[in-house]
Amino acid sequence: MDFQLSARTLELQGRLWSFMLDSVAPAEKVYAEQMRASGDPHHYPAVIDELKSKARALGLWNLFHPDERYGAGLTNLEYATLCEILGRSPIAQEATNCSAPDTGNMEVLSMFGTEEQKRTYLQPLLEGTIRSAFAMTEPAVASSDATNISTRIERDGDEYVINGRKWWTSSAMHPHCKVLILMGKTDPTADRHRQQSQILVPLDTPGVTVLRSLPVFGYHDREGHGEVDFDDVRVPVGNLIAQEGDGFAISQARLGPGRIHHCMRAIGAAERALELMVARMKSRTTFGQPLSARSNLRDWVAESRVEIEMARLLTLKAAWMMDTVGNREARMEISAIKVVAPQVALKVIDRAIQVHGGGGLSDDFPLAEMYAYNRTLRLADGPDEVHRESLARQELSADRAAQHEALAVAGREQ
Amino acid sequence: MDFQLSARTLELQGRLWSFMLDSVAPAEKVYAEQMRASGDPHHYPAVIDELKSKARALGLWNLFHPDERYGAGLTNLEYATLCEILGRSPIAQEATNCSAPDTGNMEVLSMFGTEEQKRTYLQPLLEGTIRSAFAMTEPAVASSDATNISTRIERDGDEYVINGRKWWTSSAMHPHCKVLILMGKTDPTADRHRQQSQILVPLDTPGVTVLRSLPVFGYHDREGHGEVDFDDVRVPVGNLIAQEGDGFAISQARLGPGRIHHCMRAIGAAERALELMVARMKSRTTFGQPLSARSNLRDWVAESRVEIEMARLLTLKAAWMMDTVGNREARMEISAIKVVAPQVALKVIDRAIQVHGGGGLSDDFPLAEMYAYNRTLRLADGPDEVHRESLARQELSADRAAQHEALAVAGREQ
Amino acid sequence: MDFQLSARTLELQGRLWSFMLDSVAPAEKVYAEQMRASGDPHHYPAVIDELKSKARALGLWNLFHPDERYGAGLTNLEYATLCEILGRSPIAQEATNCSAPDTGNMEVLSMFGTEEQKRTYLQPLLEGTIRSAFAMTEPAVASSDATNISTRIERDGDEYVINGRKWWTSSAMHPHCKVLILMGKTDPTADRHRQQSQILVPLDTPGVTVLRSLPVFGYHDREGHGEVDFDDVRVPVGNLIAQEGDGFAISQARLGPGRIHHCMRAIGAAERALELMVARMKSRTTFGQPLSARSNLRDWVAESRVEIEMARLLTLKAAWMMDTVGNREARMEISAIKVVAPQVALKVIDRAIQVHGGGGLSDDFPLAEMYAYNRTLRLADGPDEVHRESLARQELSADRAAQHEALAVAGREQ
Amino acid sequence: MDFQLSARTLELQGRLWSFMLDSVAPAEKVYAEQMRASGDPHHYPAVIDELKSKARALGLWNLFHPDERYGAGLTNLEYATLCEILGRSPIAQEATNCSAPDTGNMEVLSMFGTEEQKRTYLQPLLEGTIRSAFAMTEPAVASSDATNISTRIERDGDEYVINGRKWWTSSAMHPHCKVLILMGKTDPTADRHRQQSQILVPLDTPGVTVLRSLPVFGYHDREGHGEVDFDDVRVPVGNLIAQEGDGFAISQARLGPGRIHHCMRAIGAAERALELMVARMKSRTTFGQPLSARSNLRDWVAESRVEIEMARLLTLKAAWMMDTVGNREARMEISAIKVVAPQVALKVIDRAIQVHGGGGLSDDFPLAEMYAYNRTLRLADGPDEVHRESLARQELSADRAAQHEALAVAGREQ
Repeated sequence: MDFQLSARTLELQGRLWSFMLDSVAPAEKVYAEQMRASGDPHHYPAVIDELKSKARALGLWNLFHPDERYGAGLTNLEYATLCEILGRSPIAQEATNCSAPDTGNMEVLSMFGTEEQKRTYLQPLLEGTIRSAFAMTEPAVASSDATNISTRIERDGDEYVINGRKWWTSSAMHPHCKVLILMGKTDPTADRHRQQSQILVPLDTPGVTVLRSLPVFGYHDREGHGEVDFDDVRVPVGNLIAQEGDGFAISQARLGPGRIHHCMRAIGAAERALELMVARMKSRTTFGQPLSARSNLRDWVAESRVEIEMARLLTLKAAWMMDTVGNREARMEISAIKVVAPQVALKVIDRAIQVHGGGGLSDDFPLAEMYAYNRTLRLADGPDEVHRESLARQELSADRAAQHEALAVAGREQ
Repeated sequence: MDFQLSARTLELQGRLWSFMLDSVAPAEKVYAEQMRASGDPHHYPAVIDELKSKARALGLWNLFHPDERYGAGLTNLEYATLCEILGRSPIAQEATNCSAPDTGNMEVLSMFGTEEQKRTYLQPLLEGTIRSAFAMTEPAVASSDATNISTRIERDGDEYVINGRKWWTSSAMHPHCKVLILMGKTDPTADRHRQQSQILVPLDTPGVTVLRSLPVFGYHDREGHGEVDFDDVRVPVGNLIAQEGDGFAISQARLGPGRIHHCMRAIGAAERALELMVARMKSRTTFGQPLSARSNLRDWVAESRVEIEMARLLTLKAAWMMDTVGNREARMEISAIKVVAPQVALKVIDRAIQVHGGGGLSDDFPLAEMYAYNRTLRLADGPDEVHRESLARQELSADRAAQHEALAVAGREQ
Repeated sequence: MDFQLSARTLELQGRLWSFMLDSVAPAEKVYAEQMRASGDPHHYPAVIDELKSKARALGLWNLFHPDERYGAGLTNLEYATLCEILGRSPIAQEATNCSAPDTGNMEVLSMFGTEEQKRTYLQPLLEGTIRSAFAMTEPAVASSDATNISTRIERDGDEYVINGRKWWTSSAMHPHCKVLILMGKTDPTADRHRQQSQILVPLDTPGVTVLRSLPVFGYHDREGHGEVDFDDVRVPVGNLIAQEGDGFAISQARLGPGRIHHCMRAIGAAERALELMVARMKSRTTFGQPLSARSNLRDWVAESRVEIEMARLLTLKAAWMMDTVGNREARMEISAIKVVAPQVALKVIDRAIQVHGGGGLSDDFPLAEMYAYNRTLRLADGPDEVHRESLARQELSADRAAQHEALAVAGREQ
Repeated sequence: MDFQLSARTLELQGRLWSFMLDSVAPAEKVYAEQMRASGDPHHYPAVIDELKSKARALGLWNLFHPDERYGAGLTNLEYATLCEILGRSPIAQEATNCSAPDTGNMEVLSMFGTEEQKRTYLQPLLEGTIRSAFAMTEPAVASSDATNISTRIERDGDEYVINGRKWWTSSAMHPHCKVLILMGKTDPTADRHRQQSQILVPLDTPGVTVLRSLPVFGYHDREGHGEVDFDDVRVPVGNLIAQEGDGFAISQARLGPGRIHHCMRAIGAAERALELMVARMKSRTTFGQPLSARSNLRDWVAESRVEIEMARLLTLKAAWMMDTVGNREARMEISAIKVVAPQVALKVIDRAIQVHGGGGLSDDFPLAEMYAYNRTLRLADGPDEVHRESLARQELSADRAAQHEALAVAGREQ
């Protein structure tokens, strides 16, 4: 057991930190001004393109992709430690071409895509010239049970015909978004986990209507969470990813890494909130002493530090397990971090807001927006309750309970 | 001891509920459409005027004012039970002319105002033809310690000259807002609690600039939280409320009732969130059973019910104490509810959001906005920490500790 | 609505406080010495008899009984406020003849007992010359579902024959304990709630064996929690209380008041713990300042005060509802306090222990023992989970949900 | 970074598990019977000697000692993983000669002891033929601030004279306890951290009086927590450990490893509680379904699993840091686990108690005793509050805050 990061990871962290401090940090203000000036919450500000050029020149590009043919070729564990750093700024992910859901879409296409799908969609995504969306959740059903998903994908000659309604289709409002991967039912009569398929749908296909941008609290995310209607949408059969019925299996492939990314970004956000809280405590005075002298607030600092450390270690262990024994064996750890990391981030951010007073709730600090974003993580990719249930099921399974029964069954006898 | 509401209160509650169900509930949708159509977050939609007419005709007008010459003449306890009902809808307060901070401003003017101040400002406020704001918090200092407030009010002949910066000046964006009451320093050398005064400032006075609307979690409140600059603002000496140095004393008069109102509205919001949660649990199904069958979510329902009940009882007791022994003797209870009621509301609303999935975070349900609003209550009128400190100080005071010392000092002797 | 206690209640409180301070407080030390000297955890120390004489002379006797023929004739609300005071000392209940489970047993006998049962058991119990136990819970089944109870009561001529095993039979170790009321099955084939009956069993009946005293944490309660075996125990048919099948109905009659008593005593214990915590904070110094100057500990004081106040108000409301609309209508409130009051007490006591350091865990202060006792209340008379389930069931019932549906169903439409 | 345990650690874990299952588990019942039969809470039961022989034969002896000359020569990280296994049974530590405070005493003597001290005390301790105690905490002062400690150690010729009172002197009641290490003041006028010294005091020295055994929640620990009086106790100057004034430095050396041991044992206890909870949930039925089907209890299982995993990872990281960068650099992690591990254990044990009903509070299951023991860990070696304060101090220190200031200072500017 060794908690030391590898030399390669440390070198990449250093390079990324330099980029964050030298380029991203000053760009945050420019970004805010360009967004304000545009008056459009979904505007693509020019400063992003500048950051993308710089990042690419520094070799900080497609860091997420585990295959060296497509990206940095890092393990989940290695990339996780970079993901935390990216999570400190809301513009760092796009700057390094590591934005969700593009990352998952690119992984899926590189693993399951045909040559034509790779040429048409994967290549420009890797270049950062287009963006993409992922359409899974539906407004009419509880999507936490994925078998509820009801959008139909029906074969009609050389085409598939798609009908249904999706929402929380992330990135659908991005001006560069050209295509989405949609999950839907090809065969409602098949086995429960073979009914679903995934298919590529260009956003400009007739019948695709982005109805609206869904706000989160009062925020309209720049990349947007779209509600999208699919009305007799026809795409060529070549747009299907892998085979009919493979939808669930493909999801499994993307979800593991995606959860690591989300969780490490949440931890990065929590670190930033803690730094803001500490800075504020030192700069404000009430009743004759700085806030930093008050032991109740000091306790918040201490608890935040401990909670962050634990969530990070667990997430890194989950990443390591994915690298060493695979996503399936790591499912307990993945469920665990999916519950823990957003909750830790929310706790720390909420404390930071409280220390900032009214300003913490406004846009003068990034805290309220960070809170809103991290609150979505308790629901996205399955609500906490589904992941806790998954943990309980594994813990209650016979094998585990039998493990050390001799010591466990001590107790009452008469 | 008697937990039964009076016949008069029950009658008023019934009348108000009818108004809420018959008029306010259907108006909520019209309101949403009129707001959306205007494209202006600070728009004053016509439906509010219709509701105001109806409410006034029903005798549901100025319910908050304890003096029959100005309003309903209810005790704090009586009005508190109505306030909870008003808290269920974001448009009910203005409909009944019971919006903060007008309510506190009207109370202050009726108690301390000159005849001219009453004629000029109190009368149209009571009629509901103008709105008003309250300017206390400042961006540059920790206003939780009110002695930090530094805006200057300096006498110059027959005028006072005001210089400073305020923020979280609620209602400053309302199109009808004509005047604000400002708290500032007339004598920085006086005793700590005699330095501050309150003064009426018409919003159109030269030198008054409403710089911007402060968002809360991305929301721009319709009535607005303004950041307001005061640059050599001159008002006649007759605009001073009471005497120089009375600022703190006037604040005390308004804060007690205001906190009851805030807390009871928070409880009303919590009740609505609980109802929404219950309705959602009955209507959604996952993994073959309705959410309402899951005992973890059922526990949330149970805990929400208990927490709401306790917060309500404590708030009503605080109101009763204000009515019977006065604000000063009730200060422990007032501090207590100020901490408890918003936290209960936030807990219940957050659970309701979780049960609603992604929709709970969007504007399809009122939950996210309710969360944002109630989160401000943990900071407005003093953050939780100030109120807990006040509670601790009283609890640790000698008198209280001596109360039952004989039983308390049991313990170790050697 | 009126939070003022009646003159009669205030007078009784005053008289009881005097007794607590003048007689009970000094007796606590004598009690501890007599217990230590005896070397028997179930010893009946002489000081209790002295206190009983004093209490009776002061008219502080059988305060619990709502019927003036048998006791003080107080309402549930009135007695509740006395119960809190009694809860401050572990010897005050027996001193005033208000010990559980005698109180419940006396209520049951006065309501359902035959003349002979009253003469034989109720009379000496009211005199305080004997004690009694209540045998319901069984070790072999989850008794939180009372229909699981399986001890058999079978009629055989003029006798009932009892076979089974009970535990947590409170007071079974008291040297004065002469009789127990046992709950068991007379007809396993009857309707679910008509299978059980209650019957009087003298402790010296052949076949009754008190197997052992059950410890709570490491404490052997003076009155004891017994595990009792019933092996072909024969009692006359006249020992049955009311009719066969009435067991559940009789339980309902005793449980409501019993829960009020438990909860108010828990609140009294919490008050005492808070006083001890405050006293300790004032007397101990670390790193150059008294503990009472540390804002994290001050927050504990504030939170304890608020939590106690809320739990007390809810319990008093539950008592008031029992007095005004009956136990059945008050069941939601009774379930609520059953969950809340012990948890508040445990939280406050645990904080007080922490402030006391190692001493708080030992017997130098009453805190650890108070913790142990109050921990049992989360399980006795049904675990928290059963009461939360009961609350949820009522909250989710159709009637309640329909109450204000117009405001509740707002939200998304498509 | 690598979460894989070394082959050596895995081999040792396997060997230790076999010993636990084959020898310790069956011995637990014998142990309970021998203790009960003796009627003495401080009895040394014969079964312990049998276990000690077996453990020694298996090479499971003095596992804790990092120096191969004295013990297993394991790193902190390696031993930590064994410590968790030992923590599952209350008799496993003595069986393997790894009991606190002997472990710390042996470490101190091997590092700082003279040859004579080693021969007289270290050698028999390593052989397991005697036991020892550690006397630091004092009843009259808040020992969480170690500078408060006031027992005097005064030189008088060739002797030191000791006067003072200690309590929570662990192991003082063990029949084999022959010596204690005492911390006291040799020079009250020296610098704050040079006033204290440590000295060996044979328990049979005139003037040493073990006054009493301190209970914890009613339990008298077998090895005992003694209150010990020192009245003109004279020991030779050769009994001083290292030099006068070295007391604090010596403490630092022992505290780090000691905290790892405590925390890993707490985690072992939590694992056992979780196993007992799961087993109970499967075996009990209420209202027609096993407890294991209830999602609220399933959530407890899930949360327990996650909390245990995180606490374990943090503790192992702290151990690894001690091994790689030293105790001083690891102080943040050590403070963190000192707060976290006992709290996690208490949470999990409390849930397990609740699932077990009344039995969980009695001695039919080890849960109540485990709770009591783990509750002491929130106070022993400094209360949580001292460790949180230490964490806050480090987090608020200038260096750390400056680390990434560019990203932290984003926010409001006008």
